[in-house]
Amino acid sequence: MTQLEAAKQGKITDEMAAVAAGEGVSRETVLAEVASGRMVIPRNPAHAGCRAVGVGRAVKTKINANLGRSPTNSGEADELRKLECALGHGADFVMDLSVGGDIAAIRKRMLDASPAPLGTVPVYETLSLLDGDVPSMAPEFLIGVIRRQAEEGVDFMTLHAGLLSAHVDKAMNRRMGIVSRGGSIMAEWMKKNGRENPLYERWDEVMDILAAHDVTVSLGDGLRPGCLADASDAAQFAELDVLGELVDRCRRRGVQVMVEGPGHIPFNEIRMNMERETEVCRGAPFYVLGPVVTDIAPGYDHIVASIGATAAATYGASLLCYVTPAEHLGLPDLEEVRQGVVAFKIAAHAGDVARGLPGARDPDDRMSAARAAFDWDRQFECAIDPDGARRRWLRTRPADEGECHDDDHCSMCGKAFCAVRTSRRIKNLLDGKE
Amino acid sequence: MTQLEAAKQGKITDEMAAVAAGEGVSRETVLAEVASGRMVIPRNPAHAGCRAVGVGRAVKTKINANLGRSPTNSGEADELRKLECALGHGADFVMDLSVGGDIAAIRKRMLDASPAPLGTVPVYETLSLLDGDVPSMAPEFLIGVIRRQAEEGVDFMTLHAGLLSAHVDKAMNRRMGIVSRGGSIMAEWMKKNGRENPLYERWDEVMDILAAHDVTVSLGDGLRPGCLADASDAAQFAELDVLGELVDRCRRRGVQVMVEGPGHIPFNEIRMNMERETEVCRGAPFYVLGPVVTDIAPGYDHIVASIGATAAATYGASLLCYVTPAEHLGLPDLEEVRQGVVAFKIAAHAGDVARGLPGARDPDDRMSAARAAFDWDRQFECAIDPDGARRRWLRTRPADEGECHDDDHCSMCGKAFCAVRTSRRIKNLLDGKE
Repeated sequence: MTQLEAAKQGKITDEMAAVAAGEGVSRETVLAEVASGRMVIPRNPAHAGCRAVGVGRAVKTKINANLGRSPTNSGEADELRKLECALGHGADFVMDLSVGGDIAAIRKRMLDASPAPLGTVPVYETLSLLDGDVPSMAPEFLIGVIRRQAEEGVDFMTLHAGLLSAHVDKAMNRRMGIVSRGGSIMAEWMKKNGRENPLYERWDEVMDILAAHDVTVSLGDGLRPGCLADASDAAQFAELDVLGELVDRCRRRGVQVMVEGPGHIPFNEIRMNMERETEVCRGAPFYVLGPVVTDIAPGYDHIVASIGATAAATYGASLLCYVTPAEHLGLPDLEEVRQGVVAFKIAAHAGDVARGLPGARDPDDRMSAARAAFDWDRQFECAIDPDGARRRWLRTRPADEGECHDDDHCSMCGKAFCAVRTSRRIKNLLDGKE
Repeated sequence: MTQLEAAKQGKITDEMAAVAAGEGVSRETVLAEVASGRMVIPRNPAHAGCRAVGVGRAVKTKINANLGRSPTNSGEADELRKLECALGHGADFVMDLSVGGDIAAIRKRMLDASPAPLGTVPVYETLSLLDGDVPSMAPEFLIGVIRRQAEEGVDFMTLHAGLLSAHVDKAMNRRMGIVSRGGSIMAEWMKKNGRENPLYERWDEVMDILAAHDVTVSLGDGLRPGCLADASDAAQFAELDVLGELVDRCRRRGVQVMVEGPGHIPFNEIRMNMERETEVCRGAPFYVLGPVVTDIAPGYDHIVASIGATAAATYGASLLCYVTPAEHLGLPDLEEVRQGVVAFKIAAHAGDVARGLPGARDPDDRMSAARAAFDWDRQFECAIDPDGARRRWLRTRPADEGECHDDDHCSMCGKAFCAVRTSRRIKNLLDGKE
């Protein structure tokens, strides 16, 4: 039974109970959210040791880290180190997006190593097994890969089932065309073979597999815009309408479903995109990549995307796929994975505060209390990156002044010009203590 | 004659003409904006070689880099290197916020070295000359420092003239109290001496000095919130109302004026803050510090603040003061200055695109055209940090495959899985070329 099927029957599963406990919400809330499809708990029973993590607006915004080798870069050992790094810095989900070579082996190692739910894009393995020959891909073969990955314990899968043949033509006059790897594969297959999307045509068969293993489907947005000029266009929204239809079919079949979203989107269009997805897909959790709010900052796209992701989390997204500083330039290394995760932890948290999620501001309040008290240890405990913050502070910590070493100021202003110290003196004065 | 006085008389100055040419707007537009007070051109004629830079909603959003030594860190040579670095990466304005020691010498060197308009907070030098003894500061002495700095060529000055004695009490029950260095100094002076803000009381005298040298005043927000819990409170808005009154007085006197703003503000309150300032201060250019949208990310506050700054630029700000990764931990070093400038160039640009400033998206469109064509050289030319992007790309550039070296893909996806390559094949197919 999937989490959705259980919830529809009013049954609180161990996974729902764990989500409720971890998030500080009631089990009844989790039950109702899962039953309505507004929350998913991507967890394949075959993935041993996997945590239950809820994705939806009733709980904290989550982040995903994309990992995986490319044909020209990185290997299994590197990717396992990146997995450890991403989880260590707070990634809630990971995806193995490896292409080329022995993908099954690397995925197996990552599933064994990851207590976080792990996702894949099955068409990558499918095409890797066919040496990149898109037109030769038989629908049965693709569905067979989906089945095998489900049996192996993959927790969620990106399936580009809503990209139809007619949509492809709409995308061809774009500046960047199709920039989704999976979307471009499906599009080329359709146009080369003169056929409709095989995942769309055989969606019932696909859902049977997903339901049997409680794999959560993440409906891929094959036509997400790849530059600001292509944002919010007819191609993007035509596909979205089909995703809304597939959400309904998944819910009826008891398959947990979330929906992927853009992409490159100017800052002022993010709210509209979130609200439109929420409406068209009837509250299915929205899983966004970025959004990237300018095209011109390669090397800093973790910053560019954390700007968009904060707005997305504020206005409707539930899961944020990180973007690293390597985006648009190459496969990220270990340090870039770390930077991507930290930037997206910031975005998820800032979004939760902005949308008024109960308790979201508590860590900020603890931090400001520690700041007002010059309690540096407590400040670092409250920090998103405690070790990094402490190292930076120690590097320019004020030297001893006279006989005593005081930490009631920092090197930014020095002791005599510290506003927090001055403010404390004023308060004492007004309280009659000075 | 100040730029404002000239504009009121319908005179297009060389500075207005330079701003118009650089921004691609008409001289008449600049004239009307300066005359109305919605644009300022901070430039003291005594600052030899200083560029004319317009600040206002009719032109591109600008960024400022705060520099300057503290009593416990850095010196003149370091700060001059940081100045060069900030300007080299695109800072439009710089401020020398040095405290302690021989501030006049370092300011003189920075004025000589900076083609960008330079600002100060005169109360810092004043208090440094008094060895930090706040209560002993005579109003005449502070005004004397303002006069000398104006004569030396300082282009704009932060003056905390709107913070009144009654406001201080409102701020004392805050979690963080007063976190503005200048604000805390003025507050302590008022409360220790039982007197009203001397800058407010002698504002006519101050304006005479500013008008004589066309120094632009930047009305300091001494009560900007220092944590999310203190945001948008009665203290902050009580001071803002006085800033609105001072804007009117400046405009009547012919003194160019902009208004400083928060601070630590949750993402969802930024728009309201921008709109309220615009209304209360009747369109005076808004100069924001951040805003910082979460308190818990020391070490990454350049990212945290670029998120808030993008929203601020979208909804009303005209000048963004950068925040560096060292914020809340210490004085920034050279690399941290660079990171702060780049993060804020991103925010300013993303905001200009979002608010629909004519032509703002052109660099993004050039970038996406270069991406679609795999023209890496042109991509780096379009990038906010060309050298950094090129170095990163070269580090994992795909190795030669077979006999030829192709650059029509990158190490992220490799050649067979590159969506842009696939998309191109689909287009050729649909166009009948394949």
